[in-house]
Amino acid sequence: MKTYTRTFPILIHHVDAAGIVFFANYFIMAHDVYESLLADIGHGIPRAIDDGEYIIPIAHSEGDYFRPMRHGEQITARLAVTELRSASFTIRTDLVGPDQAVRATITTRHVCVSSATMKPMALPVLMRTALAEYLHT
Amino acid sequence: MKTYTRTFPILIHHVDAAGIVFFANYFIMAHDVYESLLADIGHGIPRAIDDGEYIIPIAHSEGDYFRPMRHGEQITARLAVTELRSASFTIRTDLVGPDQAVRATITTRHVCVSSATMKPMALPVLMRTALAEYLHT
Amino acid sequence: MKTYTRTFPILIHHVDAAGIVFFANYFIMAHDVYESLLADIGHGIPRAIDDGEYIIPIAHSEGDYFRPMRHGEQITARLAVTELRSASFTIRTDLVGPDQAVRATITTRHVCVSSATMKPMALPVLMRTALAEYLHT
Amino acid sequence: MKTYTRTFPILIHHVDAAGIVFFANYFIMAHDVYESLLADIGHGIPRAIDDGEYIIPIAHSEGDYFRPMRHGEQITARLAVTELRSASFTIRTDLVGPDQAVRATITTRHVCVSSATMKPMALPVLMRTALAEYLHT
Repeated sequence: MKTYTRTFPILIHHVDAAGIVFFANYFIMAHDVYESLLADIGHGIPRAIDDGEYIIPIAHSEGDYFRPMRHGEQITARLAVTELRSASFTIRTDLVGPDQAVRATITTRHVCVSSATMKPMALPVLMRTALAEYLHT
Repeated sequence: MKTYTRTFPILIHHVDAAGIVFFANYFIMAHDVYESLLADIGHGIPRAIDDGEYIIPIAHSEGDYFRPMRHGEQITARLAVTELRSASFTIRTDLVGPDQAVRATITTRHVCVSSATMKPMALPVLMRTALAEYLHT
Repeated sequence: MKTYTRTFPILIHHVDAAGIVFFANYFIMAHDVYESLLADIGHGIPRAIDDGEYIIPIAHSEGDYFRPMRHGEQITARLAVTELRSASFTIRTDLVGPDQAVRATITTRHVCVSSATMKPMALPVLMRTALAEYLHT
Repeated sequence: MKTYTRTFPILIHHVDAAGIVFFANYFIMAHDVYESLLADIGHGIPRAIDDGEYIIPIAHSEGDYFRPMRHGEQITARLAVTELRSASFTIRTDLVGPDQAVRATITTRHVCVSSATMKPMALPVLMRTALAEYLHT
């Protein structure tokens, strides 16, 4: 039961006029970590787009914001798979501050669909196997 | 029972490498319409930030994605208030395509907190009154 | 000799941790106005991308920043064509504050290239004619 | 004569509807590397903003685009200081593809101004000394 972890700094343009990270940027940060995970397990999004057999769009996303993130803070993203079904999976990413407090939790549900029919289709086996290593139940 | 409506085109940078609007951009679009509403009802965010008495951060956000949005489409945002409490409110924004199909629904819950204590405080009366006009129950 | 003009507000996420509009966002604002111009003259970028005969990438861009733009300000973009050649053109966009002061000037040079050969090719005649109306010399 | 180097992947949202990195995103990438450099030499932007004695806004920026960058490519940014004066400096960042071809060059000129008077003032000595190590003449 692994957690995929990445650390990055809050940069000047992540923050908005209120002096804290703009809420939509949390989704970008979580997706960047997800894209990094896919690359590491050998199922990078670019190749999937080029192959064109399937796409894995996001059907639902959620953000819970507990404490703000500020410019210059080092944030650690801890990503886990919280649901893994034949044609879909759910990713949960906790964004944790240097004080170890969870600042926000981002959840995204991804559905694998055939590019030809736009109907759900089974996840590629190797991708499913790789995601299973990060499954927290 | 009013709905706040704005129409805008999908621009080249809203779309990502998969050829559809990147999911995080839906939140930006919905927030831009919310910011426009606040300006129209006389409670612009800039003045609130400058006054410094209270802030109204987002505590929770959700996106449901039904059909993709593509470059060049005219999207109509239909914003309603779906919950209005003493210190918080929830906004629901339907993003509707030129085909009248709802492409996505974005929901954000906003909590008014005192800048001094960071504790919840009552929404300004005039803001509450203005938001009440858009309340759908 | 026309100027293409659009007015828009500075929104919360345009501004960065320094409290002013992040310098890269000026390029996005200018490009949004350019995209609006192309749509109005009937040469929208989406159709050009779909047709696939030519693309008009940006070869060079410049920003001169005179005074900051702040959250809530109404900015007027004044776009002119400053050079119009057979296969390229240059756009200059002045971003003007409510005080009529030019806050920044963004310049972009666009080159029409064949999608097949990536070599420069003549601009479509109707596009050239339309851009010529905005040519300031 | 050092060059500050960072490598990063092109992510899905860097790319626009034309299938290549949107030109404004090049400026963000170059600025992120600049912000990383400042943090490494002990003059992080967050602390400077908090201290409030001076700010170092960008007065001019330029982008030259030679070849597009695409989703999934590993880009290496090579940053050098090309001019270092008492109150200003110029940064040049080459964005290089995995094929070692320079895809684009981003240049930004930064001016140190007093927060109180908004007049140019001398760069902090330690910052000047640190930047001097990256000066290419």
